[in-house]
Amino acid sequence: MRTHNCGELNINNLNETVTLCGWVQKVRNKGFMIWLDLRDQHGITQILFDHERTSKKIFDKLNTINREYVLQINGIVIERISKNNQINTGEIEILAQKINILNSSLTPPFTVENKTDGGEELRMKYRFLDIRREEISKNIQLRSKINFEIRKFFNKNGFLDIETPYLIKSTPEGARDFIVPSRINKGEFYALPQSPQTFKQLLVIGGIDKYFQIVKCFRDEDLRSDRQPEFTQIDCEMSFVDQKDVMNIFEGFIKELFFRVKNIKLNDFPILSYEDAMKKYGSDKPDIRFDMQIHNLNGVLKNNKIEIFENNDSNLCICIKEGAKLSRNQIDDLNNWVKNSEIKGKGFMWIKYNHDGTIKSSISKLIDNLKANEILKVCKGNFGDLIILVSGNNKTPFIQLGSLRIEIAKRLDLIKTKEFCPLWINDFPLFELDENTKKISSMHHPFTSPKVEDIELLDSTPENVYANSYDLVINGVEIGGGSIRIHDSKIQKKIFEILGFSKKDYLNQFGFLIEALEYGAPPHGGIAFGLDRLVALMANKQAIRDFIAFPKNNSGKDIMIESPNKISDDQLNELNLSINNE
Amino acid sequence: MRTHNCGELNINNLNETVTLCGWVQKVRNKGFMIWLDLRDQHGITQILFDHERTSKKIFDKLNTINREYVLQINGIVIERISKNNQINTGEIEILAQKINILNSSLTPPFTVENKTDGGEELRMKYRFLDIRREEISKNIQLRSKINFEIRKFFNKNGFLDIETPYLIKSTPEGARDFIVPSRINKGEFYALPQSPQTFKQLLVIGGIDKYFQIVKCFRDEDLRSDRQPEFTQIDCEMSFVDQKDVMNIFEGFIKELFFRVKNIKLNDFPILSYEDAMKKYGSDKPDIRFDMQIHNLNGVLKNNKIEIFENNDSNLCICIKEGAKLSRNQIDDLNNWVKNSEIKGKGFMWIKYNHDGTIKSSISKLIDNLKANEILKVCKGNFGDLIILVSGNNKTPFIQLGSLRIEIAKRLDLIKTKEFCPLWINDFPLFELDENTKKISSMHHPFTSPKVEDIELLDSTPENVYANSYDLVINGVEIGGGSIRIHDSKIQKKIFEILGFSKKDYLNQFGFLIEALEYGAPPHGGIAFGLDRLVALMANKQAIRDFIAFPKNNSGKDIMIESPNKISDDQLNELNLSINNE
Repeated sequence: MRTHNCGELNINNLNETVTLCGWVQKVRNKGFMIWLDLRDQHGITQILFDHERTSKKIFDKLNTINREYVLQINGIVIERISKNNQINTGEIEILAQKINILNSSLTPPFTVENKTDGGEELRMKYRFLDIRREEISKNIQLRSKINFEIRKFFNKNGFLDIETPYLIKSTPEGARDFIVPSRINKGEFYALPQSPQTFKQLLVIGGIDKYFQIVKCFRDEDLRSDRQPEFTQIDCEMSFVDQKDVMNIFEGFIKELFFRVKNIKLNDFPILSYEDAMKKYGSDKPDIRFDMQIHNLNGVLKNNKIEIFENNDSNLCICIKEGAKLSRNQIDDLNNWVKNSEIKGKGFMWIKYNHDGTIKSSISKLIDNLKANEILKVCKGNFGDLIILVSGNNKTPFIQLGSLRIEIAKRLDLIKTKEFCPLWINDFPLFELDENTKKISSMHHPFTSPKVEDIELLDSTPENVYANSYDLVINGVEIGGGSIRIHDSKIQKKIFEILGFSKKDYLNQFGFLIEALEYGAPPHGGIAFGLDRLVALMANKQAIRDFIAFPKNNSGKDIMIESPNKISDDQLNELNLSINNE
Repeated sequence: MRTHNCGELNINNLNETVTLCGWVQKVRNKGFMIWLDLRDQHGITQILFDHERTSKKIFDKLNTINREYVLQINGIVIERISKNNQINTGEIEILAQKINILNSSLTPPFTVENKTDGGEELRMKYRFLDIRREEISKNIQLRSKINFEIRKFFNKNGFLDIETPYLIKSTPEGARDFIVPSRINKGEFYALPQSPQTFKQLLVIGGIDKYFQIVKCFRDEDLRSDRQPEFTQIDCEMSFVDQKDVMNIFEGFIKELFFRVKNIKLNDFPILSYEDAMKKYGSDKPDIRFDMQIHNLNGVLKNNKIEIFENNDSNLCICIKEGAKLSRNQIDDLNNWVKNSEIKGKGFMWIKYNHDGTIKSSISKLIDNLKANEILKVCKGNFGDLIILVSGNNKTPFIQLGSLRIEIAKRLDLIKTKEFCPLWINDFPLFELDENTKKISSMHHPFTSPKVEDIELLDSTPENVYANSYDLVINGVEIGGGSIRIHDSKIQKKIFEILGFSKKDYLNQFGFLIEALEYGAPPHGGIAFGLDRLVALMANKQAIRDFIAFPKNNSGKDIMIESPNKISDDQLNELNLSINNE
């Protein structure tokens, strides 16, 4: 139906007779001449009609045409008089000889342009129009390219692409499953996988050397703006590897991906222990595109009989380079943010070191200039800087300063937004203790292996056991996480017991895995990356929704197809189910 | 943990010190010498221990080792005395110096060998062991390779890989959906896709030029041995194409796939209309690896006052070359098969043309030798052949002879089992009429476009309308099917009306698609291939189950993980659902 797409003709095609198909982006009618921008996925080509060279019949047809009509246009490539350097086809236009209206269009509810006038809900309802916008179309093209580059890497490195099942079994621990009633086995249910974790372990136990899959996963969680009930994972597993092997191969993977897709050469990824990450950045996914690390001031502030500093375990600060220029208002505003944002802090103390040598501080009654200078020295700061202090116990002050660090960097534009700064976080604790319920749970998942040297602590002090696990963080976003898995059935059972499973429960839910571990499971480990986030990150964007062809809204609804929806009583009866009256 | 895998060492590695990891396939203990076969995904390497060169400590360890133990072995590559030409590593063995037991194994419930002693249910329960068998492992490797070659083709040809959603909307017509209750939107349900059909249409309506996806699809059907509740589709769609364009590109796709994966150059695919396929082969998925076409004998048999031939519309036959050698028993056996198999025929007539010029026949009272010779002529047969006749009305006699044709070819070994004979079937009717209910339904699906020249028949005689659809058949297996879609909302509405949808119903279920068609839908079409079947076919096998890593059994159960299973009352309550008492 066409000889070329709308993005490929240029000055080398002069005088060729071509046929294009596409959508009407814009029509400019100057009476004796009409220009029409014809658009497809590949670009825009300008079509020219003039009274001298174009038949009246065609001009009559043109009068019926509106935006988003679908046209087939036959004509000759000619040189444009006023060229457009912004687009590939900007040096030429097509002098139309035939025009065929392939389909008409109602007036779209928003303009199909990068700067659209459509709100988010409207754009989701008419997603098929939203995808026509260059911005979204480019996102989808980028995702497809990344997807293929991922596969090329894994194929080259001997990973087998293996599909694991979608209709699996509900394991109520962890996040909530989506369930699927079985009609043939009445009263029984499948569950959709939250990840193929146990299946990929079964594959390496089944002698598969290296496995990968790009796979949809499902979590029935209450949704936030950056979460979708269905999301895509790059899921990987390898046998006969230790932590270093896994980190090496997947660091190579990320480097190659950035090089192939963005032509960026990433440096070797630093490795930070979970403990160090919390101490230095107050976060297990630190954004290291800027510095502003957390300093511990206990050495300076303790043993001075200042009640607040004595009463708290941690007296911490961050130093904002040239932050003294912040007005009192700006500082108060930050303090309000600390109190009102999700971190719900008590507010901070501050010391401002002016360039003229004066010091202003919210705690001038507690510390003198001498002390203030000592603090500045700990931070390796200078006059002109602003120091923000937080006191508290346990993780709280670290987390507060960690969040504040990001917020300040955003407000002061300190983040090198074009850069990509990956790092590994490792040496996570195996368990975490809920301070309220005193319940112990897996920090990663129950299949994560404890460090060999800590195995003897499992019985006595499990909270002191470290895990063979690792996260990959880029620009403050957790892009991947994995671990060396348990390959010894006895340790796997012990972990379930520590987590409070009865033998009956863990056998019921994970008996197949424990059994598999008893038939010659190799040492193995792997990782999973969030593809939606990775793609958004590589495009320097945050909203994953714009990188998913058909996303759901914050209520888990697809408002275009109107799903979920009611189903018929017949369908429910066949499944032997009823909806409860409330 | 290892320097090489178990399939790569050969005579070029002599004297190298290597470390291998793998599973114990077999131990042969000759007292002073022990040979051990170490296996991984890549192959088997023989390990040698002898009393002269191996420490006593290692020999002691060896005594604790059984089949499927996981070992790490360090040693030197030496030349074998008795070489094995069957395997890559057959010229060498490893003289072990260190041995590390990485994991033990219980005695497996069946032998991990190609000729296993495990029955199907046992092998499915211990699928992780079954996958270790070379046969299944090779299937999985083949599937992975095919998967990547598919992606290479589509990437090279400008198709975008786009993920469509899994949580969509139930559309009760067609096959039965699996449904997924929504917790957030109580009383409402998602459905799992039977195919991404409407979404791929929305993508091309959204300006995506060419789309493909390798995607899981779901059908809650009563299962047969070659059906799985979840199956994988290669799903494709293109804009601005006609039927010829689509068939061209996907014929090229299949050719390239066979060449890359199997080094087979396929000839151009013949195209047969649905009508011709039924007439010649009694099937819309003919196996053309052998000839034996159906012949119509009406010209010979009608107007002879023979009641049976006069009363039936169709008097048909197939001619079995050199079939006269079949004994009376063999013929009776075939006749019983016709009566008792799923085709449930009334039995056939036969005429045997012996090499000595005599003719034997089950209908010698009806036709004389003259007539019999005329029949042989119609079939272009010779003495030595056997002709089988069936009389009947409508499609039945064609379908019976079509099935018989296949059965005879199997029994007489007429099928060139190493060959691949693809063909296209096109010009399907748009609708099919259920002879019992007189209900009209789509032969393909309701989005298939009628042939332009038949559109005017939609109102008057829809049963006479042909479709722009096409199936790809290889060796009697339907590998793919597709169509040019309707891009005109008015025709789409008319089709729904012909199918008996009320306006309310079709808007409720497919309103989003009809609306999308109103906003500038391009002419478009596509195809979907069944990946499970394609992979099995390319391996010259029929059972798709052996090409799926974790298949379900005929009751839709995964007996390894014991799924589906009961879920807790809490889970049901959260979903606001109850199981009906029966």
